[in-house]
Amino acid sequence: MSLTPVNPDRVITVALIGGGTVGTQVARLLTETAADLRARVGAPLQLTGIAVRDLGKPRPGIDPALLTDDSMALARSGADIVVEVMGGVEDARALILAAMEAGSSVVTANKALLAADGATLYAAAARHGVDLYFEASVAGAIPLIRPLRESLAGDRVTKVLGIVNGTTNYMLTKMDEQDADYAAVFAEAEALGYLEADPTLDVDGHDAAAKAAILAELAFHSRVTLDDVYCEGISKVTLDDVHAAQKMGFVIKLLAVAELSADGSGIIVRVHPAMIPRDHPLASVRLAFNAVFVEAEAAGEMMFYGRGAGGAPTASAVLGDLVAAARNRVTGSVGPGESTYSGLPVLPVGEALTRYYVNLDVADRPGVLASIAAAFADNGVSIQVVRQDGHGDEAGLIVRTHRATDDALRRTVDTLRELDTVKRVVGVMRVEGEVGE
Amino acid sequence: MSLTPVNPDRVITVALIGGGTVGTQVARLLTETAADLRARVGAPLQLTGIAVRDLGKPRPGIDPALLTDDSMALARSGADIVVEVMGGVEDARALILAAMEAGSSVVTANKALLAADGATLYAAAARHGVDLYFEASVAGAIPLIRPLRESLAGDRVTKVLGIVNGTTNYMLTKMDEQDADYAAVFAEAEALGYLEADPTLDVDGHDAAAKAAILAELAFHSRVTLDDVYCEGISKVTLDDVHAAQKMGFVIKLLAVAELSADGSGIIVRVHPAMIPRDHPLASVRLAFNAVFVEAEAAGEMMFYGRGAGGAPTASAVLGDLVAAARNRVTGSVGPGESTYSGLPVLPVGEALTRYYVNLDVADRPGVLASIAAAFADNGVSIQVVRQDGHGDEAGLIVRTHRATDDALRRTVDTLRELDTVKRVVGVMRVEGEVGE
Repeated sequence: MSLTPVNPDRVITVALIGGGTVGTQVARLLTETAADLRARVGAPLQLTGIAVRDLGKPRPGIDPALLTDDSMALARSGADIVVEVMGGVEDARALILAAMEAGSSVVTANKALLAADGATLYAAAARHGVDLYFEASVAGAIPLIRPLRESLAGDRVTKVLGIVNGTTNYMLTKMDEQDADYAAVFAEAEALGYLEADPTLDVDGHDAAAKAAILAELAFHSRVTLDDVYCEGISKVTLDDVHAAQKMGFVIKLLAVAELSADGSGIIVRVHPAMIPRDHPLASVRLAFNAVFVEAEAAGEMMFYGRGAGGAPTASAVLGDLVAAARNRVTGSVGPGESTYSGLPVLPVGEALTRYYVNLDVADRPGVLASIAAAFADNGVSIQVVRQDGHGDEAGLIVRTHRATDDALRRTVDTLRELDTVKRVVGVMRVEGEVGE
Repeated sequence: MSLTPVNPDRVITVALIGGGTVGTQVARLLTETAADLRARVGAPLQLTGIAVRDLGKPRPGIDPALLTDDSMALARSGADIVVEVMGGVEDARALILAAMEAGSSVVTANKALLAADGATLYAAAARHGVDLYFEASVAGAIPLIRPLRESLAGDRVTKVLGIVNGTTNYMLTKMDEQDADYAAVFAEAEALGYLEADPTLDVDGHDAAAKAAILAELAFHSRVTLDDVYCEGISKVTLDDVHAAQKMGFVIKLLAVAELSADGSGIIVRVHPAMIPRDHPLASVRLAFNAVFVEAEAAGEMMFYGRGAGGAPTASAVLGDLVAAARNRVTGSVGPGESTYSGLPVLPVGEALTRYYVNLDVADRPGVLASIAAAFADNGVSIQVVRQDGHGDEAGLIVRTHRATDDALRRTVDTLRELDTVKRVVGVMRVEGEVGE
C-alpha cells in the first residue's frame, strides 16, 4: 500500500534552479528513485527543467533538453514545485518570489536568503497558499528543521547548541587530534576544497550564524535574522587554547547557540568557539560532521547528528522536502507556515549567562592568585577551577568560571589585563555544555 | 504570525485514554502550554475526558470532572483526536479502532500494539480518513518516526542501528564503567524502578524487538511485525565479555538492527547484544539514553539521540503528534499513511552478514592457533584479529572475524566447541558498527 492512492492522471511537475553540486544530485536522485518517489507521493514527479549558469558545461546523465539558462522563465513556469539550490541572496529571492506568485511551492537550501529575509518568503508563501520547505538549509542531511517545526511543536525549547559548520569543525578536530596550528589546518582545509570561495564565511562564523538565525527562529517562534546573531570565528583559536582545553578534559568547537534568557523575556543567539567537556555528546562530533543538541522542557536533551554538507546529503534533505510538498499538492493541503507568535526580542550577547576559560601568564610571586581572584570577585564572577602550571617566567594560571553574564566576564578580562601580576592574557574562551548549567 | 489563522469558532477536542505516568504528563502539558498550542495549531485544544482505571486515585492538578472509567465510551465520543497511552494490546486495539470508527484521529505511544498489528490500525485509519501518529512509541522524546516517515522520504535507508531500551543500556553501561556483574546491575536497575513489571520485556530484548519492528517497517516500506524479529537479550552477557570488549577498544550495547540484505532482496531485523567500537557515535550513548543510527544512500550516516523513556519526554512526543493531528483537522488534511509498497520479505537472521567476537579457553601447546584458524577457514569465515593471552591453564584466545553470514559464524562456533584444543567457549558476540562494513 502506498502513502496515498496513485491518481494516474496526476503528475507533480518539478522545476530545478541550480545545476551545481546539489542540483546535479537532486536531478540524479529524481531519476534513480523515481519509482520510490511515485509510491511515496502518490503521483509521479516530473522534472520539467533545470536552470544553469553555463549551458555549455558537460553534465553527464542529465537530459540536455531539460537545461535552460533562463532561470526566471523556469521559475515562472507554474511547476507544482520549484527547487532553488543556486544559492546567493538577491537573485534567489527574486526567483523564489516569482515562483510563488506563479503558484509554485518552493523547496530551498538557501540559508543565506532565509537568514537575511525569511519573513518575505514566508509572507509570499502564505499569500499564495503554497509551501516553503528548507530542511537542507541547515545541517545538510540531518533531519532538524522538520523535528523543530513539527515534532517539538508540543514542547518548549530552552536551548539549541549546534556544530553547524563542517569545515571549521574539521579544522578544530585536526588542531585537537594532530596538534596542528591554525595556519596548518587552514591550509589543509583549503587543499581539500572544504572552504567556501570566500573562506571568511566559514572561519569567521558567518555561515554558522545564518544557520543559527534559522534555528533560533524555529526554536523560539520569534523572528531572528542574521544581523541579530553575535558572531566570533575560529581564526584566533591557538594551540595554547587547545592544550588548555585538553588539560581540563575539554575540547574546542565552534558552536551556534540559541537560548532563552534567564528570565525568559528574550533570546540570545551567538556563534563563537567554546570549550565543551569531552563527555558531552557534541564533543564526539569529529571532522566535517554536524550535530545539533536541543534542550526542551518536557523532552529533555536531544541530539541530531550527521553529514552537514556535500551534494548527496544535501540533496537527500531536498528530496524529503520535495516529497512533503508533492504530497501536499496531491492531497490539496499546505504544510506549516511561519511561526513567530512568541515575538521574543533578541537580546545583546552581554546578557548571556556563560562561563569563561581564561589562560594567563603571571608573575611567579606570592599574592598573585589573591590579586587575580579579587579581579574576578570584584566583577561578580565566581571561579570554579584554578590550575597553576610552571614557575618563574613560565608561570601560568588557567581559570574556569561559574556562570555569569557575558558582560561581567568581559569586564573581568579587562581588569585582568590591567593587573601588574598578569604578564599576558594568553587565551579567553567561553565554556558550554557543562552538567548543571 | 501563527502557523494558521485562528478560527475563533473552531475548537479541537482531545480525549485522553490512560492516566498513568505518560497520561498525567500529557494532561499537564495540555493545560500549561495551552496558549502555545493554540498559536501553533490555529485553534484551541480542549481536553474532553481522561479514561483511567481507578477513579479513586488522587490526581493533583487534574480536574476530577474530566475523569471516567468508561474508556470505550470516551473512545467513541467523537473527539477530534483520541490519545491512547494506556498500553497493552487487546483493549488498546479495540479502543483505537472504536475511536477511528467514530471519526477521531489517533495519537498513540503503544509500541506493543503497533509491532503486533500495526496493519489493522493503518487500514482503519485509511478507511475512516483519520490520522494515526505514533512518535512516542519508539525512543520516547527523540524525533525519529517523523524523520523516517517524512524527512527521509526522498532517500533510501540501508541500515538502522539503535539503542532503544534505556534499562538495558543503563545496565550495560554500569557493567562497563563499574565492573559490576549482570546480577548486580539487574538488582540496581530493579531498585531504581527501571525494569518493567515483567523484567524479561527489557532484559530478554522483547521491548527493543517491538521498536525494531516499527523502525524496520518505516525504514524499508515493508510490513514487519514483532514475530519477524530475531531476538536475544543481555542476560548472558558476562564480565568476561565486557573485559574482552575493553581490551579490543569496544563496548557492549543491546542493539536493534534493521538492514537490507546484501543483495537487497529482503530485510533482516534483529535484536541482540553486540560489540561496537568506542569511537562509534552509539558507543557514547550512556545510561538510560537512547539513540538510533541511520544509514541512507544519499544522506549517509545520521544519529538521533535523547531520552527514550519517562513521563515528560514521552508526553513531549505525544504533544508533537497532537499538534500535527490537530493542524490537519484545522486544514482538513490527513498525514502520511502506511507505506509498505516495497513489500520486501523479512529474511532469517542466518542470512545476515555480521562479524563475531569469540573468546576461547584453549590448551597451551603448539598448534592450537593452527587448529582454531582451520575451524574458521573450513566454515568460510575470515579472521580479522587474534589476541592470545595467558599461559598454561589460563591460556586464552580472543578472535574477531571479518564479515560472514550469521549461519557460517554459528557453524564455526559449533566446530570450535568440538575441538580438543578448545577447553571452553567463554563468550560469543556479534560485532557491529565498524568502519567499512
